[in-house]
Amino acid sequence: MTTNRRDFLKIAGLTMGLSLIDTKSAAAPLLKCLGSKTGQKMKLSFQPYNLILKHVFTVASNSRATTPVVLTQIEYDGIIGYGEASMPPYLGESQESVTKFLSKVDLSPFNDPFQLDEILGYIDSIDEKNTAAKASIDIALHDLTGKILNQPMYKIWGLSKENTPNTSFTIGIDAPEIIREKTLEAGDQFKILKVKLGRNNDKEIIETIRSVTDIPLCVDVNQGWTDKQMALDMIYWLKEKNVIFVEQPMKKENPDDMAWLTQHSPLPTIADEALQRLPDVKRVHQVYSGINVKLMKCGGMREAHKMIELARALDMKVMIGCMTETSCAVSAAAQLSPLTDWADLDGNLLIKNDVYDGVKIINGKVTLNDRPGIGIKKLR
Amino acid sequence: MTTNRRDFLKIAGLTMGLSLIDTKSAAAPLLKCLGSKTGQKMKLSFQPYNLILKHVFTVASNSRATTPVVLTQIEYDGIIGYGEASMPPYLGESQESVTKFLSKVDLSPFNDPFQLDEILGYIDSIDEKNTAAKASIDIALHDLTGKILNQPMYKIWGLSKENTPNTSFTIGIDAPEIIREKTLEAGDQFKILKVKLGRNNDKEIIETIRSVTDIPLCVDVNQGWTDKQMALDMIYWLKEKNVIFVEQPMKKENPDDMAWLTQHSPLPTIADEALQRLPDVKRVHQVYSGINVKLMKCGGMREAHKMIELARALDMKVMIGCMTETSCAVSAAAQLSPLTDWADLDGNLLIKNDVYDGVKIINGKVTLNDRPGIGIKKLR
Repeated sequence: MTTNRRDFLKIAGLTMGLSLIDTKSAAAPLLKCLGSKTGQKMKLSFQPYNLILKHVFTVASNSRATTPVVLTQIEYDGIIGYGEASMPPYLGESQESVTKFLSKVDLSPFNDPFQLDEILGYIDSIDEKNTAAKASIDIALHDLTGKILNQPMYKIWGLSKENTPNTSFTIGIDAPEIIREKTLEAGDQFKILKVKLGRNNDKEIIETIRSVTDIPLCVDVNQGWTDKQMALDMIYWLKEKNVIFVEQPMKKENPDDMAWLTQHSPLPTIADEALQRLPDVKRVHQVYSGINVKLMKCGGMREAHKMIELARALDMKVMIGCMTETSCAVSAAAQLSPLTDWADLDGNLLIKNDVYDGVKIINGKVTLNDRPGIGIKKLR
Repeated sequence: MTTNRRDFLKIAGLTMGLSLIDTKSAAAPLLKCLGSKTGQKMKLSFQPYNLILKHVFTVASNSRATTPVVLTQIEYDGIIGYGEASMPPYLGESQESVTKFLSKVDLSPFNDPFQLDEILGYIDSIDEKNTAAKASIDIALHDLTGKILNQPMYKIWGLSKENTPNTSFTIGIDAPEIIREKTLEAGDQFKILKVKLGRNNDKEIIETIRSVTDIPLCVDVNQGWTDKQMALDMIYWLKEKNVIFVEQPMKKENPDDMAWLTQHSPLPTIADEALQRLPDVKRVHQVYSGINVKLMKCGGMREAHKMIELARALDMKVMIGCMTETSCAVSAAAQLSPLTDWADLDGNLLIKNDVYDGVKIINGKVTLNDRPGIGIKKLR
């Protein structure tokens, strides 16, 4: 335990110079432990960490060169589960809000990390938002319980690693020569590319990519299209260019236009910004063809699992996505990928300073390992 | 292994005088094992068994003194998972149809019992019906994998045993003096009683019970009411008698009348005969207030889990029920009970010759133990 803790401090310290912050769980009254058979407690600690991007990344709304995360760990009975919160700007979370949230977490009333319904119900009740912070607890608990069971989460869920999908790799909005270069590089390693559209040069970007490869594409418009007829015309054009689905084509605030577009579209439409958590799945049913599930949006693996099962029961397509984050959160999401149609799990490939070794992309396919829990190992 | 097998034979032999039937998996070509890391295979065996009822049992459609089941076991790497198929007449299965189905099962292509999606997908593909036979495989696999993980299934699913509901105990249709006697006996041990209605003496039965106890009741009409207005009047009357919900009041073939009844009913209405498997949940949504999930109807624990999660997402009530069966199938269902509003898990209490020790009813509450898998132990 001491060694693990020291390693964790060392890695975290390399980047931020902060020491580990223990939550009040460590100082919780002894009385709360009386229900435990062995007196073990879960101990949460966390650490802000800044990811350095390999390339500056541009979407419809902004550009960035680094991205903040918070790394968590929950220790119980000598076993450590790892978690992570990654905070894209549009979710409104920051290292400050996540560490503030995590400082409020008191796991001392819980004597058993397997009580996920109870623990995560409590975590959810702390604050209405903060889904990335919540996910960092959820992921660490899944890693911890998987390690106690000594099996990977995908196996515990009864899934087969043979059924993982190919992952897409994202080509950002950029100058044509850069796009060509990135496409050529990615086309060797991936079976599907994701293209960010939604500015005024959509066709130009697609034509640029098509000048170097005929690999299947999916497009993410990030709400960038405003007119439904124009959107439909564009989707018909994209279909001819071997695009296989369209993510969040229009503003999430306009479900009527979106339902019309989905009804007429020759390609599946996928909700991303339009949905966040489990109750949203019903709302976007019959408005979009499918959903993009992301751990940081929905609060973690347990809720993501429920969302996927619900979407399946409602005959919707399912895609699992990620943020720019370490192999921790990406590997956690990958455990669910055998249940999905498509994966967009390239977030860890975009950073220079990953902290973990985990899921791999081999010949474009999400490739799970046999390690217990979420399947990660600290890199140093 | 040999000892376990001999014990199993002994118990089974006591009742039926049949020897264990090994499926063709034992004789499967060696070639199929090449994918296995360790050469282990799952070995399915099964045995018809006749349950002897403590009391002759009467519902709206029939009476019975014994009931047939088939006991299964899947052995893998020296560990045995137990399962069971129980066959109420209305599902159309028999010991013959179940053993015929199980004889077709070839588990030799599967090297890992954790591949539940794959294995159960194959089992489901063997024949369209036979859900009890399918459940007997599903339960044995859950018991087996839970034992490998060395944890009870409810913990593996992240549930807390504190959250189990009270179970109802069923009072069959009988003469008033017998009903009074059974009610008095059951009222000491249970917090809720289930009353079978649907003949022409419904009020008389309720009044008879109310003459000796004011314990909350639920009623199961088994499709016995034919007129929706009469049904609604009866539900209003029942509500005054401290009845808390009404199961399958009318024919399953009449969803329009049923939706009307649910809309107007002051008590929740629960679908039983009207639904069987996962795709049915959507169909009965907004027709009934909730569903009664039974392993033998839906094919086992994995599908039952999905049905419960879907019903929850659709804001429906959930009840978990059982057939007359041993503590094997009842304990399997009990693993899911922390997810439900109500349980009707009294099937093992009705028989004289249980084969297993498992879930207990303590002060009326479903009480899970800490044994791995489905939590059972062979009695002899």
